[in-house]
Amino acid sequence: MTGHDADETAAPDAPSRRRFLLGAVTGAAGGVLVGAGGVAALDGGSTGRATPTTSAGTPGVDPHGDHQAGVDRPAALQRHVELAVLDLPARLPSRDDVADLLDRVGERVTTLVVGTDPGLGGLTPTRLTVTVGVGPRVAAAFLGDDAPAAQPLPAFARDDLSPATEGGDVLLLVRCDVGPAAARAVLALRDETGLDVRWTATGFAGPPEGLAARNLLGFHDGLSIPRTDAELAATVWSRTPRGATTLVVRRMPIDVARFGAQPVDAQQRTIGRERATGAPLSGGTQADGPDLNAKTDDGQYLVPADAHVRRAHPLPAGLDGLMLRRSYSYADGPGAEGLLFMAFGADTDLFVRTQQRLDEQDALMAFTRATASASFLVLPGFTPGRGLGSVLRD
Amino acid sequence: MTGHDADETAAPDAPSRRRFLLGAVTGAAGGVLVGAGGVAALDGGSTGRATPTTSAGTPGVDPHGDHQAGVDRPAALQRHVELAVLDLPARLPSRDDVADLLDRVGERVTTLVVGTDPGLGGLTPTRLTVTVGVGPRVAAAFLGDDAPAAQPLPAFARDDLSPATEGGDVLLLVRCDVGPAAARAVLALRDETGLDVRWTATGFAGPPEGLAARNLLGFHDGLSIPRTDAELAATVWSRTPRGATTLVVRRMPIDVARFGAQPVDAQQRTIGRERATGAPLSGGTQADGPDLNAKTDDGQYLVPADAHVRRAHPLPAGLDGLMLRRSYSYADGPGAEGLLFMAFGADTDLFVRTQQRLDEQDALMAFTRATASASFLVLPGFTPGRGLGSVLRD
Ligand code: HEM
Ligand code: HEM
Repeated sequence: MTGHDADETAAPDAPSRRRFLLGAVTGAAGGVLVGAGGVAALDGGSTGRATPTTSAGTPGVDPHGDHQAGVDRPAALQRHVELAVLDLPARLPSRDDVADLLDRVGERVTTLVVGTDPGLGGLTPTRLTVTVGVGPRVAAAFLGDDAPAAQPLPAFARDDLSPATEGGDVLLLVRCDVGPAAARAVLALRDETGLDVRWTATGFAGPPEGLAARNLLGFHDGLSIPRTDAELAATVWSRTPRGATTLVVRRMPIDVARFGAQPVDAQQRTIGRERATGAPLSGGTQADGPDLNAKTDDGQYLVPADAHVRRAHPLPAGLDGLMLRRSYSYADGPGAEGLLFMAFGADTDLFVRTQQRLDEQDALMAFTRATASASFLVLPGFTPGRGLGSVLRD
Repeated sequence: MTGHDADETAAPDAPSRRRFLLGAVTGAAGGVLVGAGGVAALDGGSTGRATPTTSAGTPGVDPHGDHQAGVDRPAALQRHVELAVLDLPARLPSRDDVADLLDRVGERVTTLVVGTDPGLGGLTPTRLTVTVGVGPRVAAAFLGDDAPAAQPLPAFARDDLSPATEGGDVLLLVRCDVGPAAARAVLALRDETGLDVRWTATGFAGPPEGLAARNLLGFHDGLSIPRTDAELAATVWSRTPRGATTLVVRRMPIDVARFGAQPVDAQQRTIGRERATGAPLSGGTQADGPDLNAKTDDGQYLVPADAHVRRAHPLPAGLDGLMLRRSYSYADGPGAEGLLFMAFGADTDLFVRTQQRLDEQDALMAFTRATASASFLVLPGFTPGRGLGSVLRD
């Protein structure tokens, strides 16, 4: 009556457990879980060439491939996000030590998404993704000054940051439809690294309505983004290191009461899209991009000059395409509710140049600022044969 | 192309809006919403006797009845909770002013659950409930020293409170499946009151697995609770004022890493139920209560002497029944993750005596403490004809 799964009795912190993680989660014929109660079959652990495979029945998202999960997949945002930014020691550990650490994190991600990781406390990690990155200091040291995100972000007009909420060395971005599972996963991963936490954030998304969920302002968020393989290849995936990308994350409190006190018409002109449908004010459906040239009969722009989607649009900025925005809402208390802005891009340039244009002029920016900000090189995808940290050794 | 709903152009803060709220949301033949785009029909606003009715198609939960929504209904927890505890001025306003304020809050709740409230920003309030209460100072002043929750909670062994996180005059408990809608609703209600915020909390629940969702520890939480009308009448609904109840809310950080590092067997013995199934260690299913007398063949209690479900069980404590626990998980950052404990009871006695027993001995309490704590008289249910605040005038 007090029976339990054999593998779950091992404390996650025990050295045996850690060793187990490095070589485990393998299975026959495409399946990971065998036996009753979710006991992971051990096979090949001693060869150091274990072959984790996630079956179609896995609750989380397969973390393996050319790119990490949690960038373009899954397409619809999970309901919950937990973000932890960690610090490496002031004196940077060796390349191999950092790479080994990241390998270990990758192995742990593998056991988390299949749902066998004891750190989950038995919770089901539905659509769990974990996306891991390194901060500018790490990227520059081990991949060179020209690597994506090797240079920290410049200061922006509306920054309201402190050292405790700016930058950081290691990114753990955990998303899941089950909030408690996301919280347990990020705890397990923090514990796996043993690193200090610099800052954290949590957020939530409503259900998707069409192509995107609505944010706290009631507007669909994440409509104009790269979706096709060609679009993703053009602006999201880095060429060197191949398969990497960058993430800019900014915690942006919004004066929701002041924004919401405006007539809906004014709200829509601030954004540049209709609130109810997500359609651009220039017409069409939510799937369409705004037509910045469209005018009323009396010559007024349908998308106002200071509308957010005009100011953020790549065309007038002379930019080559769109970043992949994956933002969440957050509500940490009075005056601390807003958007956890997250955008992936092949480098951080698209973001920087867009933010600078918004700082010059943008109707939406008057309602917000940034109280936390960081950029990361998101590591390329990994496979059972090639650990998450191996890009640092190349 | 920039069309919008006529009623939504009114700013929520405009006096006209507030007047509107006092007499609106009515409809013919059981329906609330008429016309395209969710325009609320105005009818009877001038008589001051509008008759809000929520149709079956309403996204939120009908707030009207003998009891407020959000206590026993809906049965399955919504995925998101926002809690705000507000302060009335140090010099308590008059009985009528407080009653009027609560009436106004009730009217606003009505427009929020039907989804027409401009404060929602167009978000859909799926399964929204708002539960409103008053703190000890208010209950004692207007309902007498013997009213439920008129006396503040005593201090407990593991309290780790500050004035900023203890007590408070007005409770707004907002739950919804759509996180951004919950956050907007609590903002709108705070704004409606114009009161200062004392403290706030947010939380989340996973999906129900059987009778209850799992908390951060991976255990089903909310299994042994009153469910039938008879059980609710026995321990949850107050007799005076009729239809009221009380809420105890405590923010309890849990050392999840330390708890989770134990073998599952030890975790289960700490709680007294199986983690995978929720069944008591004495046998049966998750729907069964623990049998505190059941022993192994060699005379050991199947539910250990210090197991949480034994220590919290009403029988050995000589208590008359069970409180209605409706707890959520929360994760506000490192060291600030745990349980947002919430329990309804006809008075706060059941809670107080149970907490005192847990403080004496309980295997679970060693992993937790309370960093925020308050108790409230949850107002009786209200109807269109009888405002939320009217109990204070009786
Ligand atoms: C309070 C913060 C913000 C909010 C609430 C917000 C909201 C929105 C909304 C509702 C849209 C239209 C729907 C869509 O295409 O997703 C949008 C578009 C966009 N936003 Fe933001 N945004 C914020 C900050 C930012 C920032 C900081 C950037 C980058 C520096 C940015 C870049 C963009 C881009 C590139 C688009 C698409 C423009 C186009 O149509 O081509 N946003 N945003
Ligand atoms: C860290 C805080 C807590 C956690 C994680 C927790 C968790 C649990 C769990 C998993 C159960 C078994 C399933 C169920 O019946 O719901 C339970 C039962 C219960 N808990 Fe707690 N609990 C906590 C604090 C408290 C507190 C502060 C009280 C009251 C003072 C309380 C009162 C009860 C009661 C009355 C039961 C049912 C006992 C029975 O089977 O008759 N709990 N709790």
